[in-house]
Amino acid sequence: MADGIKIAFLGTGLMGGPMARRLAEAGYDIAVWNRSPEKAAPLAEYGATVCASAAEAAQGANVLITMLTAGPAVHDVLFDKGAAKTAAPDAIILDMSSIKPAEARAHSEKLAESGRRHIDAPVSGGTRGAEAGTLAIMAGGDEDAFNALKDILTVMGRPVRVGPSGAGQLAKLANQAIVGIAIGAVAEATLLVSEGGGDLSAFRQALKGGFADSTILQQHGERMEKRDFTPGGRASVQLKDLDNVLSEAEALGLKLPLVEAVRDRYKRLAGPLGQGDLDHSALFLELLDLNERSV
Amino acid sequence: MADGIKIAFLGTGLMGGPMARRLAEAGYDIAVWNRSPEKAAPLAEYGATVCASAAEAAQGANVLITMLTAGPAVHDVLFDKGAAKTAAPDAIILDMSSIKPAEARAHSEKLAESGRRHIDAPVSGGTRGAEAGTLAIMAGGDEDAFNALKDILTVMGRPVRVGPSGAGQLAKLANQAIVGIAIGAVAEATLLVSEGGGDLSAFRQALKGGFADSTILQQHGERMEKRDFTPGGRASVQLKDLDNVLSEAEALGLKLPLVEAVRDRYKRLAGPLGQGDLDHSALFLELLDLNERSV
Repeated sequence: MADGIKIAFLGTGLMGGPMARRLAEAGYDIAVWNRSPEKAAPLAEYGATVCASAAEAAQGANVLITMLTAGPAVHDVLFDKGAAKTAAPDAIILDMSSIKPAEARAHSEKLAESGRRHIDAPVSGGTRGAEAGTLAIMAGGDEDAFNALKDILTVMGRPVRVGPSGAGQLAKLANQAIVGIAIGAVAEATLLVSEGGGDLSAFRQALKGGFADSTILQQHGERMEKRDFTPGGRASVQLKDLDNVLSEAEALGLKLPLVEAVRDRYKRLAGPLGQGDLDHSALFLELLDLNERSV
Repeated sequence: MADGIKIAFLGTGLMGGPMARRLAEAGYDIAVWNRSPEKAAPLAEYGATVCASAAEAAQGANVLITMLTAGPAVHDVLFDKGAAKTAAPDAIILDMSSIKPAEARAHSEKLAESGRRHIDAPVSGGTRGAEAGTLAIMAGGDEDAFNALKDILTVMGRPVRVGPSGAGQLAKLANQAIVGIAIGAVAEATLLVSEGGGDLSAFRQALKGGFADSTILQQHGERMEKRDFTPGGRASVQLKDLDNVLSEAEALGLKLPLVEAVRDRYKRLAGPLGQGDLDHSALFLELLDLNERSV
């Protein structure tokens, strides 16, 4: 599978690091770069070529993978730092960062000017999923380009093409919308059961396998019970995600009232209550505050 | 296990029918009664004694099971129709109906006056779960009484004791709160992805196994995509459940803002939009209406 393909992997942080490592271990010819070089260096021992610049890593690559913090960082690396133009003329740019759908579409159009194809493919599943190669991968873009990348994507997780350019980012936003609202639902259920004298651990056990069951109920519900809000996914990032959902919805002329309600609650948690650095399950603290209950 | 125990099963409708059948098949000595006798009659062929009145079925029972539509129906059968008093003096009354926690506690207290014990144990999992014996069973009440019933309950599903009297009903309400809000979340995610040009089936596939995944996403999300709102659980019942959640919350002095928001949306669906008889996933229709989108 790996024969003759040259991969460049730009952005080898918490998520990108283990993803690049899995590709190197799978036998791919891979060059890596990271803005803080100490996060790329350890990949040398898995056979990756560690590069001093993004453009150097991208040199002649057929597949150029980016895993960066946000849209502007992807733009900077691809276009300002010149990674896209030093990649092979027929290169596919595979952006696995979570950015706005509109940004993904703009990148795709700009790359098309020089004949380069683009797939947006953000992921869900955290560092554990990245290490185990079990990430949910939501892809958007040209179907042939997606199929050409399928072997590579499968090393990192379970890729599914959701639609045209930007659809991967759109699916990721919808994913984050569900997660945010589900946390709000579990917070209210948890408060109700605990104030009504039920045992929270037995409650989650009782619901297992039923319609109300979910990973959010079991994992985030337990964090609420134990008041353990070590992140995990930060409340401030959940807030940013929900803001992005709402700006995409606005661009489509849509009202999403539950997303809006939960966004406002995260805003209160991260703002006036000063808890943005806690895990997103800390929305429970905001609910306690609203109900004038002590922690 | 079944030796020497005499069960009465009152209310053998859609759910109670298969539950009673499983108990008969497991070898229990069981007498059954239903208000519409034709729903009890078929249980004879599984070895159940079909009775013409609730009191007759309850005669000398050690375990008196009720599976009725609401609190007043349970009160009527137990006290007005005299089933509780004709049961054995040491009988345990096992109410598997979904009723209000306050009603369950009142029944428990009234039964205690004549030395009879009471367990509230509503279920989740639908007729399929009832037939397969895989119901989620959320129980409240005395721990010894619960343990004494464990073998019987296990024939019908997975029983977990959540707390004292009423806690089973409380857990069921929390279960319904999560389900209602999750449907609202999936409706908004579904609308966002479809209006943004994503493929809904691929979207659900892409999220499988991740944090946003749930039975509600996969089953109710598919119903929304196909506009197939054949019930399943009716929107009008979901509305009644959410009203019960809010009246219990009020009794506990709690504000549950997401439950309230979703209750208001179901009220609009069942009221002005006239769709109360559809499946609860039809909340998607209310969201379409809110967004002035056609079905």
